[in-house]
Amino acid sequence: MPLIIVEGPKIESERKRELAKKLTDVASEVYGIDREHIIVLIKENPPENVGVGGQLIADRSGR
Amino acid sequence: MPLIIVEGPKIESERKRELAKKLTDVASEVYGIDREHIIVLIKENPPENVGVGGQLIADRSGR
Amino acid sequence: MPLIIVEGPKIESERKRELAKKLTDVASEVYGIDREHIIVLIKENPPENVGVGGQLIADRSGR
Amino acid sequence: MPLIIVEGPKIESERKRELAKKLTDVASEVYGIDREHIIVLIKENPPENVGVGGQLIADRSGR
Amino acid sequence: MPLIIVEGPKIESERKRELAKKLTDVASEVYGIDREHIIVLIKENPPENVGVGGQLIADRSGR
Amino acid sequence: MPLIIVEGPKIESERKRELAKKLTDVASEVYGIDREHIIVLIKENPPENVGVGGQLIADRSGR
Repeated sequence: MPLIIVEGPKIESERKRELAKKLTDVASEVYGIDREHIIVLIKENPPENVGVGGQLIADRSGR
Repeated sequence: MPLIIVEGPKIESERKRELAKKLTDVASEVYGIDREHIIVLIKENPPENVGVGGQLIADRSGR
Repeated sequence: MPLIIVEGPKIESERKRELAKKLTDVASEVYGIDREHIIVLIKENPPENVGVGGQLIADRSGR
Repeated sequence: MPLIIVEGPKIESERKRELAKKLTDVASEVYGIDREHIIVLIKENPPENVGVGGQLIADRSGR
Repeated sequence: MPLIIVEGPKIESERKRELAKKLTDVASEVYGIDREHIIVLIKENPPENVGVGGQLIADRSGR
Repeated sequence: MPLIIVEGPKIESERKRELAKKLTDVASEVYGIDREHIIVLIKENPPENVGVGGQLIADRSGR
């Protein structure tokens, strides 16, 4: 703890590396907690599993 | 926000489309919030990753 | 299972009752699963715990 | 309900079977609730999707 | 990691203590991971925020 | 989407404001997605609801 869960689209490794580093920087600074205690979980969601405004992103992006 | 996360079994695209639309309809109506602000995340879980009553669904369905 | 988690603002009991009923109706119909197996978890978030566009909802609504 | 969500690394079926059984044993005993009402969701995360101390587990294990 | 999130009803401290200890015992044994790396998050839900079978637990328990 | 959920201890408003701003900065930059589409949910957990190494934080801090 703290734990940061990110729900987003699929991304490549280099961007995951950046997310883990930078989200940890922010949490460590704001909570005043040692970096080693901060966990980041990156969840990747296919566009057909996310709806916005009642429509799947997979369908919207086709517009 | 609001955000609706659905944890269920694997389903095909047409059912995801229905879930996104109909869950958004309900949330928009009950919260009185514009559809465009409502997000639906559909999570698909294989039957060997879900336990009910202490037993994996993958094992129960074999009965 | 399925399980539906709703992250939204605080709401009164009558609206929770509606959410539980109507989200269950949708999930039961789309998944083809008996209503009795569907769980709805309603999470209420204070406006100072939700950020949109980098700003807390508590601060935005003051505009 | 209760619902137990486990976020961990990928594991083989036999260990999932054990998790479902033993976590349910604990929850049933502590909550005093019938086993049949307890759900376990096992989430498997690749090492490049988890950060600890600002670094992906995929990168740390290479050390 | 691993992380265990428990969604259940409100419980007293002594039962939380038991949950933390026993769920960690199970996860440590099954994953073969040191206890110190295992986190348990206990979430307490009021009966009017949980629906089963389309009905709030608060309403069902009145039966 | 993306959505960032932070599970941490209780914090004061000013720190929530900072978290919302800075986590959104990071997510917007790494995903290359407009700030307005990024949501941050801050969850506050009392020390008796979090276990580390099998022990509640409430009990550990007493050491």
